[in-house]
Amino acid sequence: MMPQLYHVPLSPYCRKVRLTLAEKKLEVDLVEERYWERDADFLRRNPLGKVPVLKIDGLILSESAAICEYLEEVYPTPSLMPREPKDRAEIRRLIGWFDDAFYHEVTLMILGERVNKKLTGEGYPDSRNVKSGVQRVKFHLDYMTHLLDHRRWLGGDEMSLADFAAAAQLSCLDYTSDVDWDRSAVVKDWYAKIKSRPAFRALLADQVSGFLPAPHYADLDF
Amino acid sequence: MMPQLYHVPLSPYCRKVRLTLAEKKLEVDLVEERYWERDADFLRRNPLGKVPVLKIDGLILSESAAICEYLEEVYPTPSLMPREPKDRAEIRRLIGWFDDAFYHEVTLMILGERVNKKLTGEGYPDSRNVKSGVQRVKFHLDYMTHLLDHRRWLGGDEMSLADFAAAAQLSCLDYTSDVDWDRSAVVKDWYAKIKSRPAFRALLADQVSGFLPAPHYADLDF
Repeated sequence: MMPQLYHVPLSPYCRKVRLTLAEKKLEVDLVEERYWERDADFLRRNPLGKVPVLKIDGLILSESAAICEYLEEVYPTPSLMPREPKDRAEIRRLIGWFDDAFYHEVTLMILGERVNKKLTGEGYPDSRNVKSGVQRVKFHLDYMTHLLDHRRWLGGDEMSLADFAAAAQLSCLDYTSDVDWDRSAVVKDWYAKIKSRPAFRALLADQVSGFLPAPHYADLDF
Repeated sequence: MMPQLYHVPLSPYCRKVRLTLAEKKLEVDLVEERYWERDADFLRRNPLGKVPVLKIDGLILSESAAICEYLEEVYPTPSLMPREPKDRAEIRRLIGWFDDAFYHEVTLMILGERVNKKLTGEGYPDSRNVKSGVQRVKFHLDYMTHLLDHRRWLGGDEMSLADFAAAAQLSCLDYTSDVDWDRSAVVKDWYAKIKSRPAFRALLADQVSGFLPAPHYADLDF
């Protein structure tokens, strides 16, 4: 049976898993899950009621970091993690950076307020949060610039799960035109490179009802 | 040179790393880091300004999940992760559960409000958050009960990083007497078992100035 991914289009964690699956050429059935409705069947798959949830190999997996490590262990080609423990620690450090700090400081502040609250019926955006996210994204773009001044990819010389973790967050923000690509030429180049990969295509075709993507969102020459 | 861990006593992430180091019999120099003062030297070690940061093997590691996976890869004895990818996915799912959901829904709501805000001078606790954490911890204790009704340890038959991730959060809450051990006999038994390990001793000796530990905090027969 084809793997199934329960997801929502603008979740960075779902996008990270979709990129990983696609890069490894694993076809998947995408099932859009309105997780905030807390459907009983879905809660059996993940008692936290969060996406992504991946059904694969007879297993039901949740937590995007656990899913990506599983895919890397069972489907190692192409590799998205280096071999040396010290290099793997660097990739995982950056995954934590984007999954945790970037998400809570930026994505949740901007998209969480402007998009998720409307989709899930939680109320109006808190403009202080949006402002704080818009301010804080600069720090993260500058840190990415610092990394990319010394490396071809965020985690080293090879593309890795760290790039997917970062691109997943940024692509969500780019959907609503919340990334200032003029801030850093190296970050823009890096994003252009990752955006042009076949694995990225499905993300660029995403449509969220009620929210049109920014005109440049799917444009490879943005 | 002996490894150095920059930490604060009541950070669950620092505690998870301390438990992992101690279980693997790796001695470490503990350096208390007032991370909220954003010391320039410390920011060079971790630009996010967060603990834990571990100096080991000539490396500077941050993000607790990355640190623990590194320790597991380089110091595999005793093993804190199973070998099979599906079992590893389950351990990592639970690590994500406690590091992310439990932390944001419970630890941050209770300890973040009552202790961290005072320590870092951020102001007064928001009682709505404390209330929400006190309410939500029940769900998590019940889920742990469900797991432990079927398993010896949280992630399976062997003790693993999942147990340390959970015990690290609960031990912080127990310091301020915020765990209702009467709610679940199996969770209490599990915690008694992990609390009596030599690796736990240093945590039980922790003292945070301005906050006395609960009388039963260091008691193995609580």
